[in-house]
Amino acid sequence: MTNPADVLHLARRRGVMIATAESCTGGLIAGRLTDVAGSSDAFDRGFVTYSNAAKVEMLGIRPETLDAHGAVSEEIAAEMAQGALARSQAGIAVAVTGIAGPGGSEHKPEGRVCFGLADPFGTHTETVDFGAIGRAEVRAATVDHALALLAGALQP
Amino acid sequence: MTNPADVLHLARRRGVMIATAESCTGGLIAGRLTDVAGSSDAFDRGFVTYSNAAKVEMLGIRPETLDAHGAVSEEIAAEMAQGALARSQAGIAVAVTGIAGPGGSEHKPEGRVCFGLADPFGTHTETVDFGAIGRAEVRAATVDHALALLAGALQP
Repeated sequence: MTNPADVLHLARRRGVMIATAESCTGGLIAGRLTDVAGSSDAFDRGFVTYSNAAKVEMLGIRPETLDAHGAVSEEIAAEMAQGALARSQAGIAVAVTGIAGPGGSEHKPEGRVCFGLADPFGTHTETVDFGAIGRAEVRAATVDHALALLAGALQP
Repeated sequence: MTNPADVLHLARRRGVMIATAESCTGGLIAGRLTDVAGSSDAFDRGFVTYSNAAKVEMLGIRPETLDAHGAVSEEIAAEMAQGALARSQAGIAVAVTGIAGPGGSEHKPEGRVCFGLADPFGTHTETVDFGAIGRAEVRAATVDHALALLAGALQP
């Protein structure tokens, strides 16, 4: 499990701030990072884009991408991360969109989460199928994975 | 303690969606509301405006208000709630800005949190001094109080 204080420390060393763009976790990644006292010098802002309208209006997600790939897709995760980076003062942004459950949707399985990570040099995406382990468990595992992605990208 | 499922139920009955604007809680109010399966029909979006730049850029907070009253003030809580309402598809918005600690700032005591609640009919603000009970405890108490404010306003 990645310690949020370590992620913030790595960001400070790199001289960048962090932004988050969250759908299925609904603010818990930002919540975890700001659990740490003094996080304000390394955490800039978070976008909790739960509805598709929020994704379009807050992050500039293209409706065509939503239509073509659905909200839970690496394409949307990438646009969310890029949108958060462009609409913040952060130097790195992490995005998550997934199906916490119960029940799948969009013909996609419960527990599937797509991640996006963007910095000025490019965008990385990946998909993790956590399985139907329960809504709270999928959300907690997603927060951990997002922090691990940030830590990996911020490693010197 | 207000059950987030009850808040969502009251919003559905009223036919409105909820938006959140969070500083010191860093996304935890949105996170609590979206703990509930099916919350997507009553929770629209959340703004985690941790930095002052985020408050200005994401919610339209006026820099003059920040200069005059500081980030932890009922004036800023009101502008945050009004900004979230105007920049969402929600019919009610709750905002929090406070000093989770450790340590006070802006000559204001640790544990002070200002709340704003906005709907198309007006804006309500209040201040609660939770005291120096610890960062996690202030944040948790703030989430509970914000949910109680939403529930009170949405009561039939």
